[in-house]
Amino acid sequence: MKVGKVIGNVVSTRKDEALVGFSLQVIEIQKPGTGEAESQLVAVDTVGAGVGDLVLVVMGGAARVALPHQAPVDATIVGVIDSVGVQ
Amino acid sequence: MKVGKVIGNVVSTRKDEALVGFSLQVIEIQKPGTGEAESQLVAVDTVGAGVGDLVLVVMGGAARVALPHQAPVDATIVGVIDSVGVQ
Amino acid sequence: MKVGKVIGNVVSTRKDEALVGFSLQVIEIQKPGTGEAESQLVAVDTVGAGVGDLVLVVMGGAARVALPHQAPVDATIVGVIDSVGVQ
Amino acid sequence: MKVGKVIGNVVSTRKDEALVGFSLQVIEIQKPGTGEAESQLVAVDTVGAGVGDLVLVVMGGAARVALPHQAPVDATIVGVIDSVGVQ
Amino acid sequence: MKVGKVIGNVVSTRKDEALVGFSLQVIEIQKPGTGEAESQLVAVDTVGAGVGDLVLVVMGGAARVALPHQAPVDATIVGVIDSVGVQ
Repeated sequence: MKVGKVIGNVVSTRKDEALVGFSLQVIEIQKPGTGEAESQLVAVDTVGAGVGDLVLVVMGGAARVALPHQAPVDATIVGVIDSVGVQ
Repeated sequence: MKVGKVIGNVVSTRKDEALVGFSLQVIEIQKPGTGEAESQLVAVDTVGAGVGDLVLVVMGGAARVALPHQAPVDATIVGVIDSVGVQ
Repeated sequence: MKVGKVIGNVVSTRKDEALVGFSLQVIEIQKPGTGEAESQLVAVDTVGAGVGDLVLVVMGGAARVALPHQAPVDATIVGVIDSVGVQ
Repeated sequence: MKVGKVIGNVVSTRKDEALVGFSLQVIEIQKPGTGEAESQLVAVDTVGAGVGDLVLVVMGGAARVALPHQAPVDATIVGVIDSVGVQ
Repeated sequence: MKVGKVIGNVVSTRKDEALVGFSLQVIEIQKPGTGEAESQLVAVDTVGAGVGDLVLVVMGGAARVALPHQAPVDATIVGVIDSVGVQ
């Protein structure tokens, strides 16, 4: 999984029917140890995260395991992070 | 998922039979926050996107979830993006 | 999918039995818009591509969808490209 | 698989129910031959690794093969490394 | 698939039970056309490769197709390469 910060969202009206009702958040992936920005992607939110939240993002086939129904999704927010402890 | 812009298409006559009838679009993946170009790939279009459209692209196994039949596809356009809001 | 050029092949005698009979081509992945070289990989050819051909390469689980039988393969040539049109 | 060092952990209270009980470790992926740092990710620990341990990390669908139950996980620690021998 | 050279091995006593008996080799992935080093990873050997051998490495879900039993593995050596011919 990757650590990321929610920095915005995407609005799409014309889309796959299985995506209707999903919140599509823009995530800036960060290095957990330093918070350094790495890349950006769009993830479905399943935990009620909001802009500014630090979140746990899962990618690939695992992203579909967290969804309430089958959908063409390759990145999902599966947790809001309370703290990252790196030594 | 990734945000991308449709910049062209690919024509292939000699191809896997399961690909016949699919529209193969060339996508420039962009950083949602800035529109900065990142990479390029070919994706099957399932939502009727055209050149210049900003689209939502899903990759990996999820790309096959959006198809009407099983096919060797690893990237699919699953939405046309109305707006990207990044703070 | 990615656009690539067939630049050679790999010969392997001692290999997984499920790979026997497959043609293993060396592909140079290219940026469709410019033809700029990106990376190189080995793909199984299912469409009769030859050296110098521009091809469509599928990766990941989708690479196995195009095979005649189950095999440990993560990249497959699924089309010979006639033309790439990028604006 | 990748070689990595456990450098910390992530605490998340609001998360997918299937993740409850899993230890989420921050891993610095390293080049086995030199120990050079490559990237960082979060992995579920299934072998009782601790901070400072060199571990074997599996990613993608294989990460779920090592779990006691189905969960949205794309990286799992599957071994504590005793030694890396590179010539 | 990728072309790589076996450059060493990893020893792990405390590991997932499904990994017991597998040989864990350190692979330096190389560009087939030039032999230029690209990255390093750990792969399960199923063909009896040794240090110095040039091998064919499969990654992702396909890595598990080559195994004798289900195991948390995302990279497997599926062939020893006799020659790479690149024009």
